[in-house]
Amino acid sequence: MSQISAVIMAGGVGTRFWPRSRRRFPKQFLEIVGSGSLLENTIARFAPLVDARNTFVVTDKMQSDIVNQQAPFIPPENILVEPFGRNTAPCIGLAASWIRRLDPDALMVVSPADHIIRNNEEFLRILRLALQVAEERDALVTIGINPTHPATGYGYIQTMEEELDRNPHRAEGVYRVKTFAEKPTLETAERFVQSGDFLWNSGIFVWKASTILKEIELHLPDLHEQLVPLQGSIGSPTYPQVLEQAYGLIRSISIDYGVMEKAGNVFVVKGDFGWSDVGSWDEVVRLVPTDSEGNSLKGKVIIRNASDNYIDAGNKLVAAIGVQDLIIISTDDALLICKKGESQEVKEVVDFIRRKQMNDYL
Amino acid sequence: MSQISAVIMAGGVGTRFWPRSRRRFPKQFLEIVGSGSLLENTIARFAPLVDARNTFVVTDKMQSDIVNQQAPFIPPENILVEPFGRNTAPCIGLAASWIRRLDPDALMVVSPADHIIRNNEEFLRILRLALQVAEERDALVTIGINPTHPATGYGYIQTMEEELDRNPHRAEGVYRVKTFAEKPTLETAERFVQSGDFLWNSGIFVWKASTILKEIELHLPDLHEQLVPLQGSIGSPTYPQVLEQAYGLIRSISIDYGVMEKAGNVFVVKGDFGWSDVGSWDEVVRLVPTDSEGNSLKGKVIIRNASDNYIDAGNKLVAAIGVQDLIIISTDDALLICKKGESQEVKEVVDFIRRKQMNDYL
Repeated sequence: MSQISAVIMAGGVGTRFWPRSRRRFPKQFLEIVGSGSLLENTIARFAPLVDARNTFVVTDKMQSDIVNQQAPFIPPENILVEPFGRNTAPCIGLAASWIRRLDPDALMVVSPADHIIRNNEEFLRILRLALQVAEERDALVTIGINPTHPATGYGYIQTMEEELDRNPHRAEGVYRVKTFAEKPTLETAERFVQSGDFLWNSGIFVWKASTILKEIELHLPDLHEQLVPLQGSIGSPTYPQVLEQAYGLIRSISIDYGVMEKAGNVFVVKGDFGWSDVGSWDEVVRLVPTDSEGNSLKGKVIIRNASDNYIDAGNKLVAAIGVQDLIIISTDDALLICKKGESQEVKEVVDFIRRKQMNDYL
Repeated sequence: MSQISAVIMAGGVGTRFWPRSRRRFPKQFLEIVGSGSLLENTIARFAPLVDARNTFVVTDKMQSDIVNQQAPFIPPENILVEPFGRNTAPCIGLAASWIRRLDPDALMVVSPADHIIRNNEEFLRILRLALQVAEERDALVTIGINPTHPATGYGYIQTMEEELDRNPHRAEGVYRVKTFAEKPTLETAERFVQSGDFLWNSGIFVWKASTILKEIELHLPDLHEQLVPLQGSIGSPTYPQVLEQAYGLIRSISIDYGVMEKAGNVFVVKGDFGWSDVGSWDEVVRLVPTDSEGNSLKGKVIIRNASDNYIDAGNKLVAAIGVQDLIIISTDDALLICKKGESQEVKEVVDFIRRKQMNDYL
């Protein structure tokens, strides 16, 4: 198999873990479940397959210092700093350009920095299968998750009916993709899950760098047009300036929408390895262990007649009396008290803070 | 009428308003309801009847600076510092000694520093009546509150059946006292309230300084024995030392238990002036105004789908989502989240903190 690179997309400025996640310190850098930040754990997950010098992290200016700090073993030049976030297609185009330059045949895995995978071994097995398909077939391969409930927060991937001789890996859970579907309504999600041929879109992709760059040229010619001079400048002193100029002209577009939905040779490998995009405090609550009263307590917490709460005391002493089913997140300057099941509203709180220009709290 | 002095007892180190009240900053110094601290409002309440130079505050070493700060108009020598808290009898004996020395006929009003009275005008009317009875009859007079419910957190005072000619003020709500009752059980409290001849003990007393000192001599001879040298030393350089020695020998005892229950000439004036001893966060919640969703919000608070909460954000930003009937008190180093109706448990939390010697949080 060709050399494998990993591209960790760590540019997000998520708002759903407020008040712990902030503009300058987003979710991927937080230790949310267990030990290690989500970024640290994501990088470590690929280590058995990918060398540190083939590991790339794409991030933005504000956060590149935190990446350096959390991943000191990654060569500094592998931390690719985007001048502005432009969604996943430009990010992937940039990383693929670097990787192809080092090795024209390189395989690459693209992964968000802020997901949780609990069964790393099974994940690596699936990943190897995806790499094999990507290499053998010059294909774009995604990893799909067997849906356990009609989630409305994920995109879905519909698999295609096809003959085994057209897809010898079908028995191993490798499917040709029929369509990508955006985040559905609850009714649609229920239909998807019942149909049995829809998977959750994990946002993890596998392909050759050369393949994805070819597909970008085909389906996103304007992005390709900006990538060409950029590719020419990698390693030269003009790179920062060319990068800045290119990003000024590149439009924001996702790889799903810009390439995957349009490309022909797209496969999905079905996986079941304890994946979660931990998209909300409620999801964290579901992932962490609880004590005999159903509480998950972090830091100095005093409990009286209180059960089924998730409490992160930060640097404070928190006393909780007579309360149930609360998510309590205490930080140095802000505090969230949220009924379990309503943490999707945290986003609205952050929007409100932004509208009111209470910027210290963003 | 003789000159009137006020004695504000501000020595308490209450624990029931944790985390806002602390060892070094107890309840009486907090702005809990409306504007002004409880101490400031208590002093102001007596101002129409009592001159600043006749206003005394009894406190302890740790808190005398805060008293100075909150009541700068009171002569520094009127801030009487007890070496240790020894309950109300020694505190009152000490203050009465100072007052009698300035004016042998002085009347004095004794009041806790940490109560709320909403109708000051009516309170002053009742107080004048109490002063009149105390002066005319050389009596010990207490102010009793018409009970509105069978509270178990207050002491009760039982009034006596008697003929009008033995008590010409009876029609005005002045009664001879039959007994004092300690904080009752709920069943007893219900019986008290139903009987119609029990009042809540407000802890506000009115008498001549000379009368209470005479009664202390009679019923608390050991306290009297320590007060005598103390009285001789007031105004002399030996006073601090004599005070220290005296308090080393004085036992802790309340004026109710030590004197009022034993004395013969005790009256109670029934009042109805919006009194509360604000003994818990729940009581504060009942006293403060609410918005149309039933929330009382102090500081920077963002609310979504949350009603009937009391939230004091301190210096933080607090976001509350989907929660009802909570008391949330955020301070720089500690946080209380308490279901309404359970704030009596705050005391237990503070006891726990004390047992664990987490002294920074006391």
